[in-house]
Amino acid sequence: MHAPSNDRQPQAPDGPASPALLIDALRAIVGEAGLLTGADAQPYAQGARYGAGRAACVVRPASTAEVAQVVAVCAAHGARLLPQGANTGLVGASTPDASGRQVLLSLQRLRQRCEIDVLDRCATVDAGLRLSDLDAALQPLGLWFPIDLAADPSIGGMVACNTGGTRLLRHGDVRHNLLALDVVLFDPPGQVLQLGRPLRKDNTGFDLKQLWVGSSGAAGVITGATLELAVRPRQSVTALLVPRDDEAVAALLQAAESALGDVLSAFEGLSGAALQAALDHVPMLRNPFGSAPVPPFSLLIELATGLAPDSGLDLEALLTDFLAPHLDGLLVDAVMGRGQELWQLRHALSDGAKARGRVIGFDISVRRGALMRVRREAAALVAEHFAPLQVLDFGHVGDGGLHFNLVWPHAQLADWDPQRVEAVRQAVYDLVVHTHQGSYSAEHGIGPHNLACYQRYTPPAALALSGRLQALLDPQGLGAGVSYGPA
Amino acid sequence: MHAPSNDRQPQAPDGPASPALLIDALRAIVGEAGLLTGADAQPYAQGARYGAGRAACVVRPASTAEVAQVVAVCAAHGARLLPQGANTGLVGASTPDASGRQVLLSLQRLRQRCEIDVLDRCATVDAGLRLSDLDAALQPLGLWFPIDLAADPSIGGMVACNTGGTRLLRHGDVRHNLLALDVVLFDPPGQVLQLGRPLRKDNTGFDLKQLWVGSSGAAGVITGATLELAVRPRQSVTALLVPRDDEAVAALLQAAESALGDVLSAFEGLSGAALQAALDHVPMLRNPFGSAPVPPFSLLIELATGLAPDSGLDLEALLTDFLAPHLDGLLVDAVMGRGQELWQLRHALSDGAKARGRVIGFDISVRRGALMRVRREAAALVAEHFAPLQVLDFGHVGDGGLHFNLVWPHAQLADWDPQRVEAVRQAVYDLVVHTHQGSYSAEHGIGPHNLACYQRYTPPAALALSGRLQALLDPQGLGAGVSYGPA
Repeated sequence: MHAPSNDRQPQAPDGPASPALLIDALRAIVGEAGLLTGADAQPYAQGARYGAGRAACVVRPASTAEVAQVVAVCAAHGARLLPQGANTGLVGASTPDASGRQVLLSLQRLRQRCEIDVLDRCATVDAGLRLSDLDAALQPLGLWFPIDLAADPSIGGMVACNTGGTRLLRHGDVRHNLLALDVVLFDPPGQVLQLGRPLRKDNTGFDLKQLWVGSSGAAGVITGATLELAVRPRQSVTALLVPRDDEAVAALLQAAESALGDVLSAFEGLSGAALQAALDHVPMLRNPFGSAPVPPFSLLIELATGLAPDSGLDLEALLTDFLAPHLDGLLVDAVMGRGQELWQLRHALSDGAKARGRVIGFDISVRRGALMRVRREAAALVAEHFAPLQVLDFGHVGDGGLHFNLVWPHAQLADWDPQRVEAVRQAVYDLVVHTHQGSYSAEHGIGPHNLACYQRYTPPAALALSGRLQALLDPQGLGAGVSYGPA
Repeated sequence: MHAPSNDRQPQAPDGPASPALLIDALRAIVGEAGLLTGADAQPYAQGARYGAGRAACVVRPASTAEVAQVVAVCAAHGARLLPQGANTGLVGASTPDASGRQVLLSLQRLRQRCEIDVLDRCATVDAGLRLSDLDAALQPLGLWFPIDLAADPSIGGMVACNTGGTRLLRHGDVRHNLLALDVVLFDPPGQVLQLGRPLRKDNTGFDLKQLWVGSSGAAGVITGATLELAVRPRQSVTALLVPRDDEAVAALLQAAESALGDVLSAFEGLSGAALQAALDHVPMLRNPFGSAPVPPFSLLIELATGLAPDSGLDLEALLTDFLAPHLDGLLVDAVMGRGQELWQLRHALSDGAKARGRVIGFDISVRRGALMRVRREAAALVAEHFAPLQVLDFGHVGDGGLHFNLVWPHAQLADWDPQRVEAVRQAVYDLVVHTHQGSYSAEHGIGPHNLACYQRYTPPAALALSGRLQALLDPQGLGAGVSYGPA
């Protein structure tokens, strides 16, 4: 009575039997302008942070129909393919391997559609559209897609990565703001599937689109999405706070959420080291603390609302009133206002770290109450065992997220040792995942860069089920991305 | 190269080889108090709105470990099983068939755990816990689980149904407020899987828990969940508005969302017929319009916020200011305040309709801009072809949802004709789904009651994929609920 379970792994095609014939067939679909090889293809094969490979070619379809044909042709030729959006991902999920046999499917030209329905507060867009282009279209309408981050990804890439960002505390991640999805399946190869409709309430069986959210593109090609939009803030206020100590951080978060209710939109943390590195690197940035040294840890808090100032709600007064009683308690300092400047500073932290040396990035999360303790423990671990690494961390304290970034300083780069890098990664991840039940990839998703973590930390039962799910969606192993089953 | 796809359907076990042996084995797991047969089992076999069947027995495990053993024993005996929460669902998804061979697995006794983490704003609870019990625990902490509806379901049932309710406009559905899930798998039978962790950011491969959200319990047994909580409102204000005409409804919604930004928490619609039926049925309810006749359509609007009144934000003043300029334009009347009374009225609409006759319920949704038009077209269709049916509708205008409920009046019940009922259902659903790209099940999910709709309106490719997904999760066909594949 018990049917055999479907445990098989995706079978990797060996690569196209004839690369030249494959490229001709792809060119016939997308035209000369849509197909790149050689040096033209190389920029696409370089990851934004990690990895560099070589693609058989870069194919750039300009419509969903062309994507479907590309997938079908790749399947017929036994070629593996890798979808890529704006190539801003940080885990190598859209970077080809070194074989030169993978087809890189860029969604860059699939960006015509941007249909905004103001009454329904939603936008239906092509996957290749950039977040900045969507935002430019939404701004005059008083709407926005409330996912905010330093990079400028494509919408399809954001779905594949389930991007979080700095306003997740208030607005959730991409999954929270997604109404419908168009995908081109790997099985049957090239079948177009519309998943969901632009409805706010629709409970009609398995919500299949969820399979592609955060999938890193491993189970098909996302070609379009309908996004729920939010009312654009009409007023906002920002402050940089210096907490008395680690315990004060949690207490402030709880007090802020309770008192500031629905208008708290960001609660970010900045280490003094990361802040100083950004200030040193970007001359136009000013130290918000004036001539005083930067504090060891500060919090960027933002209130924002769609309510106009004449509603009676004055966010600046609200924040001032909230902070006042804490200034001799939980807080040792608070710098009000200058929102744009503070956010520029916040978004410059990554580049500041890069200017100091080679970055070893972390994208961890834990329960919010454990964050500062994990941060202390991880820093102690690095200091004790991993000189000369420096901690330049920052993160989303309100979400329990922390980019616990380490820098191997330029001056010591001659000693760069991949084994030590691997050792520090594993030590920090073990602390986060095993000791504190946290995550080794809060918002960057899974790619070659952290696939070993995926294998190491995913419970065996979930690993088995994920592998069977991927085999169901891609039995031919057409996707060249991550393999989610047991190693 | 192309592996065969997994198209097989779940194979239904023929039922337990020996019901007596099965019942003995189940009793050995849950004890005397945990197993019901005969008349004791009958209340569980009657649906809240539709259907009545007969179960082989009702088994009521009190722990996840017991659930796991129950599933394993059912699998070993070839018995099909049906999970049930508080039995408040409206599509028969937890009602056994008439065979008397299905095991009804009630989660009623699995309700010990209710761990609230105030700093993390989340609660980890057993699946059988009732929403009202969770709310009672959260109230003193100033928190709430922001899914509001007239019934009092179990949390596990809410996950299985992906409950929406009246505050979806502001807070989203259960999926939006779910951090982690515990399930007992059907394959391998009885395996316990913890899906996700109580983290706000965690993008580590397929988000498997999504498979069980809105699944109607067809793919395993949900035994626990970690829910994200919201700050409980500190002030709210309600008004009942009479729009000038249908066009004014959309214009008001857009104006309200734009001007009232983040504090708009409900935008519901009430037909005059439904309102009058509720007033006639519940003597303690008063006509909010005094001695005037109830208007043909009114809107219940609510503002709510976690900001205290001393924040400078006075919701009553805000709403009055918003409404004033519309009183000679989009609105013909507005009744302010009396929130509790208005919500009692809102939640009495279903019972009011029942008092008028036999209800033919609809749970449709469309794009918000199309809602009033669909309502007009559907009402015209009923008036023209389906006398003596009366329309007593109400719904979630802000979400595009409408309970387009029809009543076959008591006086004409002698003429009740199941074929005409089926005809009107199909006519309305065709209008909603085919003509207006809407949904035939906005928030009630899928069960025997609307399985024909599922088969009729799900695109073939999605039907095929859903069937393969279910076969992957339940290859033995252990779940006695809905079959999601092609008929």
